Amino acid sequence: MSCYSDFPFPEDYPNYVPNAQFLEYLKMYANHFNLLKCIQFKTKVCSVTKRPDFTVTGQWDVVTLREGRQESTVFDAVMVCTGLLTHPNLPLDSFPGINTFKGQYFHSRQYKHPDIFKDKRVLVIGAGNSGADIAVEASHVAKKVFLSTTGGAWVISRVCDSGLPWDMVFTTRFQSMFRNSLPTAVVTWWMARKMNSWFNHANYGLVLKDRTQLKEYVINDELPGRIITGRVLIKPSVKEVKEDSVIFSGPPEEQPIDIIVFATGYTFAFPFLDETVVKVENDQASLYKYIFPAHLEKPTLAVIGLIGSLGSMIPTGETQARWAVRVLKGVNNLPPRSVMREEVNARKENKPTGFGLRYSKALQSDYIPYIDELLTYIDAKPNLFSLLLTDPRLALAVFFGPCTPYQFRLTGPGKWKGARNAILTQWDRTIKATKTRTVHESPFPFASLLTVFLVLLVAIFLFCL
Amino acid sequence: MSCYSDFPFPEDYPNYVPNAQFLEYLKMYANHFNLLKCIQFKTKVCSVTKRPDFTVTGQWDVVTLREGRQESTVFDAVMVCTGLLTHPNLPLDSFPGINTFKGQYFHSRQYKHPDIFKDKRVLVIGAGNSGADIAVEASHVAKKVFLSTTGGAWVISRVCDSGLPWDMVFTTRFQSMFRNSLPTAVVTWWMARKMNSWFNHANYGLVLKDRTQLKEYVINDELPGRIITGRVLIKPSVKEVKEDSVIFSGPPEEQPIDIIVFATGYTFAFPFLDETVVKVENDQASLYKYIFPAHLEKPTLAVIGLIGSLGSMIPTGETQARWAVRVLKGVNNLPPRSVMREEVNARKENKPTGFGLRYSKALQSDYIPYIDELLTYIDAKPNLFSLLLTDPRLALAVFFGPCTPYQFRLTGPGKWKGARNAILTQWDRTIKATKTRTVHESPFPFASLLTVFLVLLVAIFLFCL
Repeated sequence: MSCYSDFPFPEDYPNYVPNAQFLEYLKMYANHFNLLKCIQFKTKVCSVTKRPDFTVTGQWDVVTLREGRQESTVFDAVMVCTGLLTHPNLPLDSFPGINTFKGQYFHSRQYKHPDIFKDKRVLVIGAGNSGADIAVEASHVAKKVFLSTTGGAWVISRVCDSGLPWDMVFTTRFQSMFRNSLPTAVVTWWMARKMNSWFNHANYGLVLKDRTQLKEYVINDELPGRIITGRVLIKPSVKEVKEDSVIFSGPPEEQPIDIIVFATGYTFAFPFLDETVVKVENDQASLYKYIFPAHLEKPTLAVIGLIGSLGSMIPTGETQARWAVRVLKGVNNLPPRSVMREEVNARKENKPTGFGLRYSKALQSDYIPYIDELLTYIDAKPNLFSLLLTDPRLALAVFFGPCTPYQFRLTGPGKWKGARNAILTQWDRTIKATKTRTVHESPFPFASLLTVFLVLLVAIFLFCL
Repeated sequence: MSCYSDFPFPEDYPNYVPNAQFLEYLKMYANHFNLLKCIQFKTKVCSVTKRPDFTVTGQWDVVTLREGRQESTVFDAVMVCTGLLTHPNLPLDSFPGINTFKGQYFHSRQYKHPDIFKDKRVLVIGAGNSGADIAVEASHVAKKVFLSTTGGAWVISRVCDSGLPWDMVFTTRFQSMFRNSLPTAVVTWWMARKMNSWFNHANYGLVLKDRTQLKEYVINDELPGRIITGRVLIKPSVKEVKEDSVIFSGPPEEQPIDIIVFATGYTFAFPFLDETVVKVENDQASLYKYIFPAHLEKPTLAVIGLIGSLGSMIPTGETQARWAVRVLKGVNNLPPRSVMREEVNARKENKPTGFGLRYSKALQSDYIPYIDELLTYIDAKPNLFSLLLTDPRLALAVFFGPCTPYQFRLTGPGKWKGARNAILTQWDRTIKATKTRTVHESPFPFASLLTVFLVLLVAIFLFCL
């Protein structure tokens, strides 16, 4: 689910790829496509400004800093790929008394190793993916671990229905259609039911404050186990920080604390860009389809990866780049600026449609519909109806199976001839990774009896007809 | 589920109690009942032999070693509580080449801290509870972790249906009755279905070689997550050990290994007892109801805790002790020795009855039926039928709810007046432990609509009648 669309993970990779192996994969990708020669590393971009003749040429002056030497270069186009997680968000103002705190506190970005938590009383603030990961790691060595959350979180396990990877079960075109066509209330209720089937989020202190808007999921296999063994205690928001303790809101409770970790997320900004190019306001940027500044005279700047979707970042960014490059090259055109501004404004309002999932943040989007939209622009969206006629097996796998990135390379420019086979073998490769011991299973005598019974039942039924 | 029947865990204890807290609980218990004055610590028992006049007095000569000084004392009765996990089982003979291995190897009992695995390639042999725990802990720091199992294992999570503790869901009189009255094939099939709903054990390499006999469950919340991320690789049995590698059976595969952990379990023995008192053969001892040597002239020796059941050891041992003490005191009598020998022999044969669960080892028994049998002897078994008439709320909780140890103190000698309340509040106390943050939930608009719809449906149905 997280690979580049024309470059599957090696066969011996696990279903979920640990960080070191993921870096190895990125290096393999860069080598395979001979990309390193195009990349200049260790270079800081100081500023990106329109050239005086921008309205005609669309060119940019880019000032860089490399090994202490500043340099200015003219570029025909610029792609900004700094992403959503640029600046640590450390909202100390919301924690009265934090200045009197005598223990240690830091942002989750500075966290490297759980050893610092040994025998300490640790408070992690924020139950996002970082917060949950850090709380779980700390819980193996710390004296006590509290995880404080204001809004709650949906926690899901990598190990989904009968042990299949959750994203391969959840991210299918069939389910996406289902989720987006039903009323929001029904989808929200159904999702809550699904989420609570692993563990009741209310009983574990993690229930959402507002269930009508979708927040980022927390993917963590271990958190519920740490909660039920008392190693991690979920707490409400912090009311006040004292010298060596913290008071939680809700029923008055004071707990001695040695270390506070602010897993309070990130903000993004473009300090190297003028506000007239991309303006960031309320965690939003005025970007058409999350990519193109809506009011530029020439579409020669694209922002890639400034989107949170319920899917993988790699194929999202890749598909954005595929379209963006075609726009920058002039192969594809953008609509008039007024149309783009309308799209951007509508998104800012984040008006509920009454159908499908509702996101709590404007920078979020549903994975499959968004990618499909981009694929439509570059004429690479698989046509399910014609596929059903020409290659029904593939069509069924594309519609009901996991929406693996290979689907984005079945047709159109950049078509990859390995895509079909990669899709048809995806489940085999998934199971092969964990099935590292096999046993000749003797079938259950009862199971075969059951089959006989069912066959008889069907036979009787057909006979009666 | 694991407390002494008249001494619940403190209210601030988590659902699953970590080792340090459990030790604290045992100390609280000993203090509460003023037991420490009866216990002489740091004393090794060298031998327990029948007195010359044993057939008349039933007395024992007990030789002990304390602070270097040997002492002999006469005892009227002896309870042997050394348990099942006495001697580490290190079957080196089954691992050809182990003597040439240049890395480190040791039994799981010697394992203390995962640091020794840092950046090493680790092989854990045996997928029991120790093996799975060690493999998971190693996987956080090791370079590679293999978990080798010959027979496979059913792995279950502490976090069960909607997050309830698995033992409170699984160990009920209702389910026990269900399990023990259906044909073995059906129960086995149903259990496998239940076990595989978390993850398919075949796809994770953990499938049982022989599913018809029940092995001890492995309780581990993290193992599947470590397998799906490739941090732990399940492997078949070891064929051969080389200097710095291991060859697995099945498809030929050699893996370099730095450390081997033998999580190969324990055996038990009674070196201080003469074989004529208790003889251990094929991991079995000739004990009536797992407690009394079947052929002693006087029933003045009881073995406590030499049983593996699908339930907690603490209340099992406690109930055994309650009966045994009454036998030792002469309040209760044992049947004739011939009857006892018959029971022991029948158990040794381990003949399938065709109904209920079938255990792979003769020293295993089902929790509730075994405890109920002991309770019958001491007249402390709750009578569900009369309870249904006098206290239906309690009766339902006893039958459908978790079989908490308080049930063994509702009636008879040693009755505890707190038992009823402890049973009726058990779910509240369970949920309180994890619900450390509460939110005023706005009910789902859809859920209330659903309720209205269902009420209407029922009304129409009743009206039609």
